[in-house]
Amino acid sequence: MAVQGVIDRYRPLLNIPDHTQTVTLLEGSTPLIPIPRIAEELGKGCKAWVKFEGLNPTGSFKDRGMTVAISEAVGRGAKAVICASTGNTAASAAAYAARSGLRAIVLIPKGKVAAGKLAGAVAYGADVYQIDGSFDDALSLVVEISNRTPIALVNSLNPYRLEGQKTAAFEICDELGFSPDWLCLPVGNAGNISAYWMGFKEYYELKGIPRPHILGVQAEGAAPLVLGHPVEHPETVATAIRIGKPARGEQAIEAAEESKGRIIAVSDDEILAAQRKLAASGIWVELASAAGLAGLIHEINAGRFDASGKRITIVCTGHGMKDPDIIASSMPAPRLIPAKSDALEEAIMGSAK
Amino acid sequence: MAVQGVIDRYRPLLNIPDHTQTVTLLEGSTPLIPIPRIAEELGKGCKAWVKFEGLNPTGSFKDRGMTVAISEAVGRGAKAVICASTGNTAASAAAYAARSGLRAIVLIPKGKVAAGKLAGAVAYGADVYQIDGSFDDALSLVVEISNRTPIALVNSLNPYRLEGQKTAAFEICDELGFSPDWLCLPVGNAGNISAYWMGFKEYYELKGIPRPHILGVQAEGAAPLVLGHPVEHPETVATAIRIGKPARGEQAIEAAEESKGRIIAVSDDEILAAQRKLAASGIWVELASAAGLAGLIHEINAGRFDASGKRITIVCTGHGMKDPDIIASSMPAPRLIPAKSDALEEAIMGSAK
Repeated sequence: MAVQGVIDRYRPLLNIPDHTQTVTLLEGSTPLIPIPRIAEELGKGCKAWVKFEGLNPTGSFKDRGMTVAISEAVGRGAKAVICASTGNTAASAAAYAARSGLRAIVLIPKGKVAAGKLAGAVAYGADVYQIDGSFDDALSLVVEISNRTPIALVNSLNPYRLEGQKTAAFEICDELGFSPDWLCLPVGNAGNISAYWMGFKEYYELKGIPRPHILGVQAEGAAPLVLGHPVEHPETVATAIRIGKPARGEQAIEAAEESKGRIIAVSDDEILAAQRKLAASGIWVELASAAGLAGLIHEINAGRFDASGKRITIVCTGHGMKDPDIIASSMPAPRLIPAKSDALEEAIMGSAK
Repeated sequence: MAVQGVIDRYRPLLNIPDHTQTVTLLEGSTPLIPIPRIAEELGKGCKAWVKFEGLNPTGSFKDRGMTVAISEAVGRGAKAVICASTGNTAASAAAYAARSGLRAIVLIPKGKVAAGKLAGAVAYGADVYQIDGSFDDALSLVVEISNRTPIALVNSLNPYRLEGQKTAAFEICDELGFSPDWLCLPVGNAGNISAYWMGFKEYYELKGIPRPHILGVQAEGAAPLVLGHPVEHPETVATAIRIGKPARGEQAIEAAEESKGRIIAVSDDEILAAQRKLAASGIWVELASAAGLAGLIHEINAGRFDASGKRITIVCTGHGMKDPDIIASSMPAPRLIPAKSDALEEAIMGSAK
């Protein structure tokens, strides 16, 4: 069967205007990868899966929402789109804008530019501007300019982004034939947790499929929803969730409460350990993407979560290739050995378990 | 329908031993993305698709073959696998070895180590050794040691790699409902062109589906199959096809001849231009992956190829995220503007077409 993008696959379930003209890179339909070894560690009889959103066209879950946002913008005649972002949103916006022949404008806050993170947006041909201010300043500017001009806003304030992102919840239910008991995922700007909860609620209403509890996970240094107040200078290695004032904070808290789940925070070390654990099962994810598993393990270790017999889906939002520097920078130089088989054998056997 | 890996999806068509124990990350089933704007440029009535293999779990087509090679190795009791590689093969081998609990050993030639390229293999936990010699020395060593020890060889000399890789040809036919008139793809070690041709021939025998002509494309500085002799010091920006002595050279030439296609060479500039052209349609691929399109355009420009009315599939073997440095290193610093909407508007409008 042909791979479809999320609009074609779920159009009747998406609350989008009739003028929408589908622009797709065949995003979605990402694999739900069983992780039996990790599940066994989590609890007796536990079943766990990773929804690997890093296998979307630009390497992150953002593509699900961007296909809808850009399709709507194209349908109403927009000639350009704009967003404030230094990472995944920028790459996704640039790709879908390019796909449809629209201009993509990306604002980034002033400061050291992480070239690797911007490479995606630049590769897809976005116009990038550095704003002499903070990320919030950049965001205010894109909102203002999109109100005054025909340039379409594609930051996550755009409601169509969530319409696209909720399709991941549909896919999980469609593939499993049920919904998991728990869904664990990172929480940064909080659009994704809100979108998943929308999706699960809609499938409950439409098909009677029970809704999962949701465990949202922030990084300790960027945990406004756990602290109950904005964080002025968020800090975490998990850059994709380094956000102090989430755009969808209230919706996220509602999702956690309604689902009888919760939002918690974990340390950078816990996130790094979870990234390694996933990679040891063959799944290399962006650091922020490891927060879901890190949170689950955190709760189990604290005695607040019994995973026994549970069915758990862990959402991994981006591919590890998004940020190879975190690996490369701590990588020891490989050991140099002579080009002789006995030397190689000795080296290999010497370091065997 | 659940996403399956290539072994489960095509098992009856794979020539693999009964002892094979499936190790999968749900590779394959990659999207076949229509590229109508590019097709229009190629020729009147031309239809073209990109088979985007960069959306495999580790970001390249290597996963199709690696799932089979590792599954076979696990089934016969191997405890470790070994390969010589600095890039995609190493990452894929490391991921599938991790997935199955096997040790992965990667040999790289001595010299400056491109950290970004190695990050994947290291992230998945491979043991990396630098060999005091060339890539060919490293390859000789892995062959020798896999003959003398129970360490399984997973370089492309392993025949099961091709069994997995041929499934991409099956997928193209299954999704289109026919086979394309032409298939264009990069040729480095020449395993992939050989595997595609195997796949198309088998579908022809099984289902009577006509076989495509194959256009294999090498980089000018690494074009042994065009020159007719090995290249001692291959040079090209497209690192994934920087190979002077292809392991499957004879099979590749056979594929080109039998299919009434050909193998040609293109310049690095042509490859870079094709990468930009694909990105301008929303598909960011690794440089080597752009060789297929570069070759097609090269032939059209030379008057040797009429794309009018043709149905053409272009295989893009790896994701652009595999090598962001090529973008990042030539990226100008983004223009700094004040955090004021009039300044932003002026900047944006000033540079509009």
